[in-house]
This record gives sequence, C-alpha cells and structure tokens, in this order.
Amino acid sequence: MSGPFTMRQRLRFQDCDPAGIAYYPRYLALCDAVIEEWTESVLGISRGRLHFERKLGLPTVHLEADFVAVSRLGDWLDFKLCVAGLGRSSVSLIMSVASEGSSRFDIRYTQVLIDMTTMKSKAWPAEWRARLEDVLESAP
Amino acid sequence: MSGPFTMRQRLRFQDCDPAGIAYYPRYLALCDAVIEEWTESVLGISRGRLHFERKLGLPTVHLEADFVAVSRLGDWLDFKLCVAGLGRSSVSLIMSVASEGSSRFDIRYTQVLIDMTTMKSKAWPAEWRARLEDVLESAP
Amino acid sequence: MSGPFTMRQRLRFQDCDPAGIAYYPRYLALCDAVIEEWTESVLGISRGRLHFERKLGLPTVHLEADFVAVSRLGDWLDFKLCVAGLGRSSVSLIMSVASEGSSRFDIRYTQVLIDMTTMKSKAWPAEWRARLEDVLESAP
Amino acid sequence: MSGPFTMRQRLRFQDCDPAGIAYYPRYLALCDAVIEEWTESVLGISRGRLHFERKLGLPTVHLEADFVAVSRLGDWLDFKLCVAGLGRSSVSLIMSVASEGSSRFDIRYTQVLIDMTTMKSKAWPAEWRARLEDVLESAP
Repeated sequence: MSGPFTMRQRLRFQDCDPAGIAYYPRYLALCDAVIEEWTESVLGISRGRLHFERKLGLPTVHLEADFVAVSRLGDWLDFKLCVAGLGRSSVSLIMSVASEGSSRFDIRYTQVLIDMTTMKSKAWPAEWRARLEDVLESAP
Repeated sequence: MSGPFTMRQRLRFQDCDPAGIAYYPRYLALCDAVIEEWTESVLGISRGRLHFERKLGLPTVHLEADFVAVSRLGDWLDFKLCVAGLGRSSVSLIMSVASEGSSRFDIRYTQVLIDMTTMKSKAWPAEWRARLEDVLESAP
Repeated sequence: MSGPFTMRQRLRFQDCDPAGIAYYPRYLALCDAVIEEWTESVLGISRGRLHFERKLGLPTVHLEADFVAVSRLGDWLDFKLCVAGLGRSSVSLIMSVASEGSSRFDIRYTQVLIDMTTMKSKAWPAEWRARLEDVLESAP
Repeated sequence: MSGPFTMRQRLRFQDCDPAGIAYYPRYLALCDAVIEEWTESVLGISRGRLHFERKLGLPTVHLEADFVAVSRLGDWLDFKLCVAGLGRSSVSLIMSVASEGSSRFDIRYTQVLIDMTTMKSKAWPAEWRARLEDVLESAP
C-alpha cells in the first residue's frame, strides 16, 4: 500500500454551529475518525485493540491547523492523510481536507506512541515501523 | 419508496466514554445523522435547505429510549428508521439499532414541524404529507 | 442532606445547532454533567473512582424526555435532580430544567448499577442505598 | 480591566475518551467556552448578539497546540487567556491551561472578525479595538 489514505465524511447538523458553518472542534473529531480508520488500515490494528489489548495509546502532542475556507451543513468533505515523518516513537501526519476539490483546512499532527500503563513513550514495534515506512512520503 | 430507512455507522472513539462503551448522548447524535439523511431521502429536501431557505425546523418534542445492550468502540451499528404515525404537523419515528443482528437500543421520537420565524407548529405541506404517508408503517 | 440536587450551567455555542437553539443531544451531555456531580455529592464517590477503582458503572437503561420550550445561546439553565425511586440495583431520577423560572425540558431516567467486569447488575452497597434513601422523594 | 482572563472548568465524563483521559477535540470546545465568556467580558457583547444581531463572526483561521501532560476525569482545569497581538481585523490569543499549578496544554489562536453576510474580514470597530488594546499584553 502507498500514497495518501483517503476517506469521505459528510458535514452533519451536529458538526455545525449557530453561525451555520462547521464548528472547528468538531472538525478535529471528524479528523480523528479518519486517523482511527488509518490506524486500522496502515498499522493493521484497530484502535480498540490498541487500547484495550495492547494498553497502548497514540496521543497528539502537537498540532497546527490552518482554516482556509468555511464548510457548510451537508458538504461532503474529502480527507487525505499522509505520513510526513517518523521518529523513534513519534509520527508526523498531514491531514488535508477539501470539498469538491477546493481546500477547506489542513492540520499537521505529531503523535507519540505511549505505553498507557506508564504513560511513557515507546519505540515503534518493528512491524509497525515497517508499515509506516511503506507509506512515508518522500520529501517534496 | 417504502419500508424502513436504513443506514450504517461505525462507533468511533469520539462516541465512547471512559468506561470504553458508547456514551449515550453521542448515540443521539448518531441517530440525528440518520434522521438527517432520512429527511433528505424521504421529504426530498436537505436539512440545510429546510432551515436556511424554508426557515423551518423539525425539533424533537418527546423521546423515549431503551438501551438493551452496550456497544463498543469499532462496532458497526445498523440503524433502521420507521414512520409510526403522522399528525397535522407532527411525525412519530421509531429508530431501532442493532449490531450484527443483535439489538442495542431503540428510540421513539415525536417531532413537530415548526416555522422558525414564529416558533409555532405548521401543518405538513401537501407534498411532504404525501411522501410521509407513502412510508407510514401499517400498525402491526 | 435532602431535597433536590441543583446545578446551573450556561448554554454554550458548542451546545447550539445551526437553527441557533440548543441541540438536544448536547442537552443530554449537560444533564450527564449534573448526574456526575450528583453522584459525587450523594453517593460520596467521584465517577472516576466509581469506574477506575471500583470497576462499577451506572448506565442508563431507559429515558423519557419532554422538550417544552427551546433554549438559546447564552441562556443560564437551572438543573434540578430528584431521586424518584430505588430498586435492588436501579435508581429512577427526574431531571427538570428551567431558565429564569420557565420550564425548558424534563427527563426521567432509569439507571442500573453494574459490575463493569461482568456487565451484570449489582445490588446497591448498603452505604449507597442508605444515602439514596435519604434523598428519595416521598410520592407527591 | 487588565491582565489575563481566567476561568475554571471541570473535566467531565463527556470530555474523556476510552483511554480514560481528556479527548483533545473536547479540549477545544472547553477553550471555546472560555473565549465565549472572554468575548462577553472584554468586548462587552455576548456571542449570541455578535452573531444574531450584528451578523458578525470571529472564526479561527490558525491554531497551534502543545499538549504537555494528560488530564483525567474530574480534574479541575484553570484556563488563562491573554491577548498577544492585534491586527486590522485579527486578534492573537494565547490560552494556557493548568491543573493544580502544573501545565496541561497551550494553544495559540489567530481569529479574524468577519461580516457573516459577506464572509469577508472587517476592521475592528473603534470601541472594540480600544477594549482589546487595554488587555493587550506587552511583549515579555
């Protein structure tokens, strides 16, 4: 597998604010759903098993977001997720979101694999590292 | 068109609570997404246009829910929505939710069409009434 | 201690929908915050300790809600919670919510104490039963 | 008035994820509640009137967040909000969040005043600019 991971979600009533446009904390929840599917697809383990069986977590330690244009109730949003970097226990992700080809927002994440019992970072297991290297984007 | 309206949604991390199971206020948001698609499919108007162009709303005035079994992170939920009754300006809906064939919860809603400018109930326009009658379930 | 448990919360931007009024799934989350404080106050244990130390849960198995009047962004909501009934492992709660003295909505809950490791109901420990009996409303 | 704007909120069940810690999209909603109170306190207008009477909005165009330590169910969080910069129609905000004196996360926001009817940026009205200048932090 290679290239960006893609997923489509519709902007729902629950995602919109009294101004009638997307409420950005809900954007983060929609992006998190994409990362959830990506984890299962790329690492080969569901988030449920990651947490409850392996007692691991993948918290966000840093994020930067640029909101380019507003989204409205009912819009279909196309999420594209790329792996931009890989550290001993961290991963850099870039989420680009568009609707009908025009950009809505971009988020850069740094996430760190942690052991939930100690809350300390943990080096990527070899199999997961290999899977992440497979989808790591070469620098543009 | 006839028979129940169906939709499948996956239970996400954002929908689960620290006990690791579905957080029931999030269930209501997932059901609302189903009602949103149902509105567009059955009434033939998107919720966006309903609110912003027609200045109408369809608030819930009564609901009753029975939670039969818990749902867990990653479960695929099958939502089934039936029209159980129709009044001058109201509609009774029954949402039944199952996963892999076993029941999770059921909600009965009464919703009322209102004019958002006056916040008063409004009789169903003839076209919408006809569409609702088409999908109204005969009493069991 | 006796009488209803009360708490005030403001209706936030995040709680409102594109129609500019309270989004009812968010109402349930606000009520849940009240039940959370009530648990700590009446049972004498925080929900965190209830779940993580005692491995107990208090899921809702039934709820009925009546929405009487809409709430708007910025409204101060007064939540009043009463214990209406007590079973071997269940409790019936009545939440009444008003703003500036006029009713907005009422919810009746049935919750059941469960052992999270078996997901089976569990009789109230004697101390908690005594505390609940202290606040049980006499029938009107 | 001068100095940072402060507000305390408790981390609720609804704000926590199946890992038992704060779910970061919910952090953004909690911070938004702080910005909501700050708007009313500093600009002297509620967000409801800002949107519905004045037809203005204050969307976030950029944010950067650092998550330093996790928060747990029941934690009391102290939010501190400072104005770090002021443009023709923009404002830079710094939100610092701690619990019992130890840092949990920091977010830097750029928000822009817009006219909701045109969705274009709008220069700060003189009164609001004066109020923002009053609380603008001198560079450290």
